[in-house]
Amino acid sequence: MAEVAIVGASGYTGGELLRFLIKHPNIEIVAAASRKHDGVPIHKIHPHLQNTGLKFKNIDPEDIDADLVFTATPHGASMKIVPKILERGIRVIDLSGDYRFDNVEVYEKWYGIKHEHPLDAVYGLPELYRDEIKKADLVANPGCFPTGAILACLPLVHKNLTKMIVIDSKTGVSGAGINPSHMTHFPECSDNIIPYQITTHRHTPEIEQELKKISDVQVSFTPHLIPIIRGILTTVHAFLEENIDVEKIEKIYKEYYSNEPFVIVIDETPEPSAVRGSNYCHIGGFGIDKNNRLVVISVIDNLVKGASGQAIQNMNLMLGFDETEGLDNLGLHP
Amino acid sequence: MAEVAIVGASGYTGGELLRFLIKHPNIEIVAAASRKHDGVPIHKIHPHLQNTGLKFKNIDPEDIDADLVFTATPHGASMKIVPKILERGIRVIDLSGDYRFDNVEVYEKWYGIKHEHPLDAVYGLPELYRDEIKKADLVANPGCFPTGAILACLPLVHKNLTKMIVIDSKTGVSGAGINPSHMTHFPECSDNIIPYQITTHRHTPEIEQELKKISDVQVSFTPHLIPIIRGILTTVHAFLEENIDVEKIEKIYKEYYSNEPFVIVIDETPEPSAVRGSNYCHIGGFGIDKNNRLVVISVIDNLVKGASGQAIQNMNLMLGFDETEGLDNLGLHP
Amino acid sequence: MAEVAIVGASGYTGGELLRFLIKHPNIEIVAAASRKHDGVPIHKIHPHLQNTGLKFKNIDPEDIDADLVFTATPHGASMKIVPKILERGIRVIDLSGDYRFDNVEVYEKWYGIKHEHPLDAVYGLPELYRDEIKKADLVANPGCFPTGAILACLPLVHKNLTKMIVIDSKTGVSGAGINPSHMTHFPECSDNIIPYQITTHRHTPEIEQELKKISDVQVSFTPHLIPIIRGILTTVHAFLEENIDVEKIEKIYKEYYSNEPFVIVIDETPEPSAVRGSNYCHIGGFGIDKNNRLVVISVIDNLVKGASGQAIQNMNLMLGFDETEGLDNLGLHP
Amino acid sequence: MAEVAIVGASGYTGGELLRFLIKHPNIEIVAAASRKHDGVPIHKIHPHLQNTGLKFKNIDPEDIDADLVFTATPHGASMKIVPKILERGIRVIDLSGDYRFDNVEVYEKWYGIKHEHPLDAVYGLPELYRDEIKKADLVANPGCFPTGAILACLPLVHKNLTKMIVIDSKTGVSGAGINPSHMTHFPECSDNIIPYQITTHRHTPEIEQELKKISDVQVSFTPHLIPIIRGILTTVHAFLEENIDVEKIEKIYKEYYSNEPFVIVIDETPEPSAVRGSNYCHIGGFGIDKNNRLVVISVIDNLVKGASGQAIQNMNLMLGFDETEGLDNLGLHP
Repeated sequence: MAEVAIVGASGYTGGELLRFLIKHPNIEIVAAASRKHDGVPIHKIHPHLQNTGLKFKNIDPEDIDADLVFTATPHGASMKIVPKILERGIRVIDLSGDYRFDNVEVYEKWYGIKHEHPLDAVYGLPELYRDEIKKADLVANPGCFPTGAILACLPLVHKNLTKMIVIDSKTGVSGAGINPSHMTHFPECSDNIIPYQITTHRHTPEIEQELKKISDVQVSFTPHLIPIIRGILTTVHAFLEENIDVEKIEKIYKEYYSNEPFVIVIDETPEPSAVRGSNYCHIGGFGIDKNNRLVVISVIDNLVKGASGQAIQNMNLMLGFDETEGLDNLGLHP
Repeated sequence: MAEVAIVGASGYTGGELLRFLIKHPNIEIVAAASRKHDGVPIHKIHPHLQNTGLKFKNIDPEDIDADLVFTATPHGASMKIVPKILERGIRVIDLSGDYRFDNVEVYEKWYGIKHEHPLDAVYGLPELYRDEIKKADLVANPGCFPTGAILACLPLVHKNLTKMIVIDSKTGVSGAGINPSHMTHFPECSDNIIPYQITTHRHTPEIEQELKKISDVQVSFTPHLIPIIRGILTTVHAFLEENIDVEKIEKIYKEYYSNEPFVIVIDETPEPSAVRGSNYCHIGGFGIDKNNRLVVISVIDNLVKGASGQAIQNMNLMLGFDETEGLDNLGLHP
Repeated sequence: MAEVAIVGASGYTGGELLRFLIKHPNIEIVAAASRKHDGVPIHKIHPHLQNTGLKFKNIDPEDIDADLVFTATPHGASMKIVPKILERGIRVIDLSGDYRFDNVEVYEKWYGIKHEHPLDAVYGLPELYRDEIKKADLVANPGCFPTGAILACLPLVHKNLTKMIVIDSKTGVSGAGINPSHMTHFPECSDNIIPYQITTHRHTPEIEQELKKISDVQVSFTPHLIPIIRGILTTVHAFLEENIDVEKIEKIYKEYYSNEPFVIVIDETPEPSAVRGSNYCHIGGFGIDKNNRLVVISVIDNLVKGASGQAIQNMNLMLGFDETEGLDNLGLHP
Repeated sequence: MAEVAIVGASGYTGGELLRFLIKHPNIEIVAAASRKHDGVPIHKIHPHLQNTGLKFKNIDPEDIDADLVFTATPHGASMKIVPKILERGIRVIDLSGDYRFDNVEVYEKWYGIKHEHPLDAVYGLPELYRDEIKKADLVANPGCFPTGAILACLPLVHKNLTKMIVIDSKTGVSGAGINPSHMTHFPECSDNIIPYQITTHRHTPEIEQELKKISDVQVSFTPHLIPIIRGILTTVHAFLEENIDVEKIEKIYKEYYSNEPFVIVIDETPEPSAVRGSNYCHIGGFGIDKNNRLVVISVIDNLVKGASGQAIQNMNLMLGFDETEGLDNLGLHP
């Protein structure tokens, strides 16, 4: 049994980490840290997690004793906590944006804050960095939009098939976290669609960083808030450099992901409901129009493959467990 | 490994049976029968069930060879199938209304059809009939509304605390099944509330049958369609026969359900999202007003504890497995 | 042209008052007061109200000059403002709970605050107090739940047909106002049902006050939050004192409301979507079960007939306009 | 008073035509034709249209006597009806796709059927063809996606600022019409996003036809079904031919639409809820990224400006009424 702790356990990503870890056969949760809810049983915030005996604790990160810590803290907060935990020889999976960038200047420009403690980290996308993750002390868990977007584009850029990609993403409201706001107020966002940060979203440079490492591609990104709870549907509009059959494209995708446990290339058009609550990513919906524009669709659950599930997948890799341990539940459809 | 088959595998309750059985450690699915979709891979209808290798088969019930069969068929259809399967020595869990009634005349009156093959069956509510279920050849899986309503009322009628109950139920749209209709058309039922069969719903006599066996109580029932996918919230308005503290009521409930694996009496007000996708029933929200009206709230997932999950629970009992085997996933919140 | 002002114009009821008043042929809006948004064009908060030229003003109620003022302010705030406006000879329609109660002690008990300035007011339900409203200086606009509940029960209590009513109400989320909270956060309330204040809601004594004036009836009330934006559906479970045909009940309702411009007794089961955005109340869905329980359903738009539309209706009566002036839009379905 | 008839009055666009025409001061509805619902009062299908006295009639188009007829019939059906009505000297506004194309071959290719009765028609987008519409006998009312897309692109192509546009559209479910289907079944499309006809949607050539008349531009189009009832949000990703400030782009848009009664260029990001139920189109959300990609967002109500409202606007032009007559209601937000 490995001992793990969660810092920031009262948010939605914290709740999802708990949901998976409670049932994980090799894990003991030694702390569910939350400053705001010290002493509160976790089911008061996470009503689906009954009878666990767990309570939130306002624990100083320096007092955590564990084999691995998840920091499910906001960007800006993680950089203050992560170094202290690492110093004590504890491995960390950070779910914020603080350690995702190779170049700290890119981080500082897009996040608008000074980085206080830059550190080397492995970008926690197992489909790209499986071997590095296994050995890492610090894994930077990818953003939700980048996970859906990168997975949808990887085979294309790997094969150098496009130089120009427009990514139009649609996300569920849980991506905004547990704190209420005007935009997430039901009467405002229900029965509505809200484009936001249409050319300035912070996940743009994260997507670029990973795709441009593979080939020279121009990436444009725009996100929209959709009245669903969970799920990101990513519509990739990629202009192809050469004439190529759509069947060939599908074959390339299927081969590329043939050994991946959580990425499934399907013959149909993906829908978020098929992966709801699960760690799967479905990719499909391939079409090419007369402008040689290829459309590819990917779907993930933003809280699972887009956050906490992927973090558990990374933990499994780091701790030497089967990569799918504790993550094998099927999507909840309908 | 026990071999099980599902007749009516392409509907929502069929899909949920598959979701649980695919992951059940002691079960092999030998047939997913569907007349309409013969030869179609199950993921074409159930997009969350990828890579199972299972296909729907148009199989004659008389040709099924299994240890146990689930008949997830409409009322009226089950009565034509169930007897033939039983005759061949195969145990059956029927999810329709056909075998839920002690008195076939009640069935015929409320369902408006002649019963062609009445048979003795055990009413499949483990909280009432656990021992009988274990030995049964035919289990009649309860209706979704009755499950939520009976569980919410049981401790009360057991203690003879009320003679008059008004049950106002709110159900998700998946309760109407997978076949589209005007009422389940998104523009009609979204952002809307639809009361239906307000004094004539067929689940009324089912609730009455079970509660009246325990004590003499008058039951009134009205259901409403609510724009949620899954979940039944049952509001019980029970007029108490004597003055009694609400704390005492809560204690009675907690004691009554103290050994139940899937019924949790909570201190808060239950919400369907906390049991989404799980086999749990939460009961709580106790309040008494100056009219000596007690309000109790229960929530279930209509497709799980209200249908397929409860059927798996019954299967576990019948086949001698741990009652919670394959059913231990937590609710999906948010 | 009459001059009117709105205090509290940046909330949802303020927005609805503006929506109707902007198009009202006899009205000039002289002030849209909001402390928080001083100087902000109204379309920044109410994005549907473009090109009006109106801006919110942080105006002292004592400086308002108008023929009539709507106070769309929270309870507790209205009592500080309304007396000052009345003193200056300006008529007031107050949308809070502060002036709805005949007995100030009932108010203080249920609202939990001391009333600083009790005043005589007319309860602004035109179907009960049309003549008094015409002459009133201060109209207390009814609560949203009481409007739907009282209208659904009036013919019954008027005819003394019941002594015992259970009111189970379902409301849209806009009833909680424009300020976000955990309960109104989309991931929490979407795909969910939230019973609240199940035996302690402040609208209970308001419903009782008006019904008990007509006949001696026991009223029990429980509200639920439903994931719809607008609308209240009220399910009345009334135990009848005598045997009476449901057709006779319908006839009584149709006669009672035959001259009302905004209450329509329909032959079908009412649904909130049919009155969305309009000032209509639909009543129907009549059924009687073997327990002599009558079910009656009413629907209103909580922001219109349940708040701002009714306030405009009252204004029309007070200022001598046609009662339906500016309110004749049909519901928005689907 | 002009006399108008609606063929296909029982669908959603028929219902919206009725909603506007009932309140139109210059119009008398002489027939609400429906084959399926002959003799049924309209409120049985359109529950918001109570007390109108109107009934559906199964009327032969050749027997209609009116000044103008709306054919709210499916494509393929309109071509059989429209010529017969025109022959009798009655003007027609057709809401199907049958008469929208300059080139009948394009129609036949994309709609997959032979056109039986091609006729000259004016494309009913007042912002492009106001003068021609006034004189037309047959107006082809634009498709819902094309209305939102063309209005969002017009100033750009007019100024020749781009040669390459990707249009990613998100539509509410009412766009699929009143007939239920698997895709519009609440449990399937609620809490979900469904891309469809991702490179093959029939509105593609319609958008192209109108934009390419103005300048040579490459148009790519992909639609998505979103769980909202009404509304289309169009995200235009346009690659600019030259460096240009976003402020200049906004100025170009504001000037272009300065005299349009229903197109409002706003400083904020448009949201469908702001135009819900109204004939307005909001355009805004301008942004340019480092790839010289301009993003522009437009929103319309698909049933109003995207269908029936625009048809009324065309009728007003054809019959010499004020263009906004009967259409001046504000959006319903929240």
